[in-house]
Amino acid sequence: MKIAEQLKSKIDFKTKPLGALGLLEELALQVGITFDSLSPVLKAPHLVVFAADHGIALEGVSAYPQEVTRQMVLNFLNGGAAINVFCAQHDIHLEIIDAGVNCDFDPELPLGKRKVGKGTSSFLNGPAMSPDIAALCLANGAGIVDTIAGKGCNVIGFGEMGIGNTSSAAVLMSVLCGLPLQDCIGRGTGLDDVQFQLKQAVLEKAIANYGGTDDIHALMAHFGGYEILQMAGAMEAAAKKNMLVLVDGFIATVAYLCAYKMDSSIREKAVFTHQSDEKGHQLLLKTLEAKPLLQLGLRLGEGTGCALAYPLIVSAVNFLNEMASFESAAVSNKS
Amino acid sequence: MKIAEQLKSKIDFKTKPLGALGLLEELALQVGITFDSLSPVLKAPHLVVFAADHGIALEGVSAYPQEVTRQMVLNFLNGGAAINVFCAQHDIHLEIIDAGVNCDFDPELPLGKRKVGKGTSSFLNGPAMSPDIAALCLANGAGIVDTIAGKGCNVIGFGEMGIGNTSSAAVLMSVLCGLPLQDCIGRGTGLDDVQFQLKQAVLEKAIANYGGTDDIHALMAHFGGYEILQMAGAMEAAAKKNMLVLVDGFIATVAYLCAYKMDSSIREKAVFTHQSDEKGHQLLLKTLEAKPLLQLGLRLGEGTGCALAYPLIVSAVNFLNEMASFESAAVSNKS
Repeated sequence: MKIAEQLKSKIDFKTKPLGALGLLEELALQVGITFDSLSPVLKAPHLVVFAADHGIALEGVSAYPQEVTRQMVLNFLNGGAAINVFCAQHDIHLEIIDAGVNCDFDPELPLGKRKVGKGTSSFLNGPAMSPDIAALCLANGAGIVDTIAGKGCNVIGFGEMGIGNTSSAAVLMSVLCGLPLQDCIGRGTGLDDVQFQLKQAVLEKAIANYGGTDDIHALMAHFGGYEILQMAGAMEAAAKKNMLVLVDGFIATVAYLCAYKMDSSIREKAVFTHQSDEKGHQLLLKTLEAKPLLQLGLRLGEGTGCALAYPLIVSAVNFLNEMASFESAAVSNKS
Repeated sequence: MKIAEQLKSKIDFKTKPLGALGLLEELALQVGITFDSLSPVLKAPHLVVFAADHGIALEGVSAYPQEVTRQMVLNFLNGGAAINVFCAQHDIHLEIIDAGVNCDFDPELPLGKRKVGKGTSSFLNGPAMSPDIAALCLANGAGIVDTIAGKGCNVIGFGEMGIGNTSSAAVLMSVLCGLPLQDCIGRGTGLDDVQFQLKQAVLEKAIANYGGTDDIHALMAHFGGYEILQMAGAMEAAAKKNMLVLVDGFIATVAYLCAYKMDSSIREKAVFTHQSDEKGHQLLLKTLEAKPLLQLGLRLGEGTGCALAYPLIVSAVNFLNEMASFESAAVSNKS
């Protein structure tokens, strides 16, 4: 009997009505298959936050100034951000990566050093980055996961910080899914109506100006961000190592979309941790046929959805490993 | 400045876009108001599972035999049920109450002894219990909460086990909310089409046979269950003590509805932990204008939704207490 069938049988004979644990049952099945075990164990959970700046932010598409990316990285390192609080709550090891923030950090800071530039170029009239830098981003992400896997980790979530990155993500979603831009863009960190219209106009023009091919690598280099591409490379590498890949909100799901376009086998390893309030995310999840664990109206990024959903993944594993069966508990099953 | 305004201000100046933590921000506000504190602390979380049998179960309205109530109580006491696993995961103290199971338990078992009868009478042709027994149920629930509050607990969830109790809950929902029965009944633990039609016919007849008043106490005695009424009394008492009241799925929300009809001030203290897959629950939550924290397709009862959502409540409290403010972290706020 295949592992999937054995897991289904184990789940069905737990002391509960058939299917009564809903999504947790699907999750337990997925984790068991990913780890090829009837008694899977989550090991050394990690969350990696990639930070980078975006040239497109200077076109007025964000409610916050670009310097907030740097400031928030320092906030992460000082333990003051939401993701610090939630990772501490659940004993998730947190790593912060400078994928390309527009500043020089003190080299003594406990920061993963993967800077490939000081922010991308604006993709309004040209590419965000060269093909070589895009490839370097993917390799950097994979390298980070290699190191973390070496520490025994088998479950990893990814977050991001980068003023302007909902613009990059919205355009990538539009061009990679063939969906109208207006269905993919939202208010990011909180644009008003005028700012929102400017964002839409800028991004429409950027797409109209694109003269390249539909190749995933060409599109990633042209419209991507350093943190989005490093995350895509990291997700791809984690899936290849049979790690459970926790997908956060809108930006992270676009990074997942990039990884999926490169190698669709990531699907089996991916857990969609929440549905963001950012407009495009619901449609993107629907397009990917993904069922999110949480729907809390979050729109913060940083990997916060991954951290908040993590205890549900633990619960799925725990019921699979610890609940009694009808037989062991001498409980009558449905007649 | 009132506590609510102070809390809102504290939440808004955390290092995140305004409202970016969605429902967790509403939850942090509610917890702060309930405990009248800008730095609330959750203390000694408890989950109480009330178990009882139902005369109506003998009319063929359940997929499982009545003896499963007793068997599941023993499973709870042996640590083998889902609620055991999830409470252990989150350090929630679990208490099991015999509110009226149709058997004699070994008196040595670590079971709360609040049995008021060996199952209710069938309410098909007469009342489930007398008004005196209904009043005793409410008092029993309040007494249990008194004892637990004495241990320093300020956050308490409630679950239930009782073969046939979705029937009692569906009828109570229908008569208390003035909603058509067919919108309130579901498949419980897993009825097939024929069994489901029988359930509907039996319950319609029971409502047609009722000749009493619309008084909440009369309706609870006629259609209620021992565990539902003890839970309602417990919820009412917990709210009066300014404890945070965690409401589980369909049955527990009907118990909440009963408590609400007795004293609507419970609303401010109640956290709706999940939306069950049981048909009537979505409509009931909508009727109560309640936003559930989780939507995982659970339909198990036992308080499992309370336990699974508990870490989100901790997260809400933790971000309120531990996150940096824009000022303390020197992060630029929205311009």
